[in-house]
Amino acid sequence: MGGTRGLDARRSDRDRLVVRYRLWVDSEAHASAAAAAIAREQTVEVPHGVGGAELQARLLGRVGDVADAGEGRFDVSISYPLEVVGTQLPQLVNVAYGNVSLMNGVRVVDVELPAAALEALPGPRLGIEGLRALVGAGQGRPLVSVAIKPVGRTAAELAELAVTFVRAGVDVIKDDHGLVDQSAAPFAERVQRVGAAVHEENARLGRRCAYFPNVTGPVDGLARRLEVARAADCPGVVLCPGLLGLDVMRSVASGSGPVAIMAHPSHAQTAPGRREGIAPDVLLGVLYRVAGADAVVYVNALGRFSWPVQVCERINERLRAPLGGLRPSFPVPAGGVRAEDAGRWLERYGADTMLLIGGSLLGQDDLLGATRRVVEAAHAVDPARRGVAEGEAER
Amino acid sequence: MGGTRGLDARRSDRDRLVVRYRLWVDSEAHASAAAAAIAREQTVEVPHGVGGAELQARLLGRVGDVADAGEGRFDVSISYPLEVVGTQLPQLVNVAYGNVSLMNGVRVVDVELPAAALEALPGPRLGIEGLRALVGAGQGRPLVSVAIKPVGRTAAELAELAVTFVRAGVDVIKDDHGLVDQSAAPFAERVQRVGAAVHEENARLGRRCAYFPNVTGPVDGLARRLEVARAADCPGVVLCPGLLGLDVMRSVASGSGPVAIMAHPSHAQTAPGRREGIAPDVLLGVLYRVAGADAVVYVNALGRFSWPVQVCERINERLRAPLGGLRPSFPVPAGGVRAEDAGRWLERYGADTMLLIGGSLLGQDDLLGATRRVVEAAHAVDPARRGVAEGEAER
Repeated sequence: MGGTRGLDARRSDRDRLVVRYRLWVDSEAHASAAAAAIAREQTVEVPHGVGGAELQARLLGRVGDVADAGEGRFDVSISYPLEVVGTQLPQLVNVAYGNVSLMNGVRVVDVELPAAALEALPGPRLGIEGLRALVGAGQGRPLVSVAIKPVGRTAAELAELAVTFVRAGVDVIKDDHGLVDQSAAPFAERVQRVGAAVHEENARLGRRCAYFPNVTGPVDGLARRLEVARAADCPGVVLCPGLLGLDVMRSVASGSGPVAIMAHPSHAQTAPGRREGIAPDVLLGVLYRVAGADAVVYVNALGRFSWPVQVCERINERLRAPLGGLRPSFPVPAGGVRAEDAGRWLERYGADTMLLIGGSLLGQDDLLGATRRVVEAAHAVDPARRGVAEGEAER
Repeated sequence: MGGTRGLDARRSDRDRLVVRYRLWVDSEAHASAAAAAIAREQTVEVPHGVGGAELQARLLGRVGDVADAGEGRFDVSISYPLEVVGTQLPQLVNVAYGNVSLMNGVRVVDVELPAAALEALPGPRLGIEGLRALVGAGQGRPLVSVAIKPVGRTAAELAELAVTFVRAGVDVIKDDHGLVDQSAAPFAERVQRVGAAVHEENARLGRRCAYFPNVTGPVDGLARRLEVARAADCPGVVLCPGLLGLDVMRSVASGSGPVAIMAHPSHAQTAPGRREGIAPDVLLGVLYRVAGADAVVYVNALGRFSWPVQVCERINERLRAPLGGLRPSFPVPAGGVRAEDAGRWLERYGADTMLLIGGSLLGQDDLLGATRRVVEAAHAVDPARRGVAEGEAER
């Protein structure tokens, strides 16, 4: 292919949604046939010819490269026209992984959004630099966040816990995603008490620790919960797009209200090594970012989950990489990070990381001292550390 | 165990969320250990002892039976207290399959909701009998629905197609789930034109065919789209809970606006035979129903997807079975049903079925005649046919 045609192809692809699927099939011929079926299923969804040849030629997904990925797997690229896809998130997901999410052996391993979608979608409102400014963390250092929990503790007990974390110097205190509106600490009471306690302790110590309450819950109460958070001067919130819907997060990022969003992966239904679903780096690293997450929580290697470290690094990379005009988001490794390993993880992942430690700290006898040591480890990380991924990540 | 203790256990379970997980592990001991980890992950999510022994005893998930399901699979039941779960849908899903959705080899194969949740959730507003009454289908016969498509056709062309379908006697005309707000047939124009055409033809022929436009799209425009549908006198809508969020469907079912909901499974990310996810009959047959779907579209056996017929029958069964005080929902087999097989499927699935045929009809030279034959096949089904499932379904 000549250089000019290559350039034209790339130019026109900027106006298309390009999805790379991994297919589990037994030959390249079957991969090509499956790709053609997917290209039809995800667009016109009618037999050959219905609607007219011109319409089908214009709107059918276009199958590109088919590459043997070994072990009975083939990677195929399919591009979809802007006329079908548009720039709205539900339809982007519908075309990329709608009906084919009901087939076995079809996995999304890469997505390139049309330029028009990248312009239309909000992306992070603060992003990495904005979040650093919010909590007064200069010098490009990593951030430390902690979770208040467990469910069953009263609002007063959670507020007391939060005060200890402010004293220890953490940057962000978040509600556990399991704290919603239970009787022990109802949403409004919790947000008011914890918010007030964090503000008082901040004022006393000259700190800017941020409290992000969990606003995940019934969607028709979401505006009210955001208002409660705003009224308590919370500069951000936690929400679970897997439970609420990705576009609900996008609508929060596009609206007014508390400015920062920490996305939590509960019910995200993604993990490395599956034959179906959306690969973690694509879902958490691309889709969560374009939908407006300033920080994206994922389950770290060697914690309670068993995600390979290369997958974690690939998520980090996606969240930080140039993407249209969108701001980068903080990767937030979590899910059983041991307090004593904090420094090691931050050295590896680099300064553009927000570490989230929950249970490991709460189990310590000296909570204040243990949390302080995590904070010190974060402050000791060289701001120049980039945490570049090494090796190939499993998709 | 004595009769009385058994009864007590069942009584108290009515106040708990009971989830049956299938685990891929290599021994019963590992299954028990994994179950204990899940019971902790999905509730207190802190190490042993944090928050106090009393709190953990009260709130930790309780592991019940562990059963060897063969081939390296073990089924475990875990029940969760109402105090943690509550009665709201996002938290129900969060506890049933939140963080564990990020683990491989953990699948949800059954869910029993607490009685309080079944009372709090809307369920279908019309259900099977209500939908029959809506379209004037007496005698307990099955319904026939068709899709207008493909994307790229103008609103006028789609309206013309709809008129043919009214003439043929179909009960429900639905937008293809891929029709959103594209330039060829923008949402408001499409709903108005198709709605008006269906009404006129209904009036001319004395029919009560219903048009359900697809309202899937950005959540912050959903109220406006429902209003457009209402203004066009549409008695129901199509929406994709996988794309919008399950609780968004629940909020539509709980609100005012068009009364019937046909749920479409795009991006539902479920299929038989996987090691992860929520089994299709649980997601589509239980969760979609409690969230308010009057009719649930799924991909039928022998169509473009390869779901075993036993799975389809299990979905049918779930949608129709007694469930608290909730109405039953219409199962809607779709996804490549051939027009000439309509009668055979309806005989098998029984009268409480709504068949959805799309592409197979659109490819016919004589669209009116072919559609009439499908309608006749549905009218010929004995209303007493129950379509009872035979054999064990793959989970």
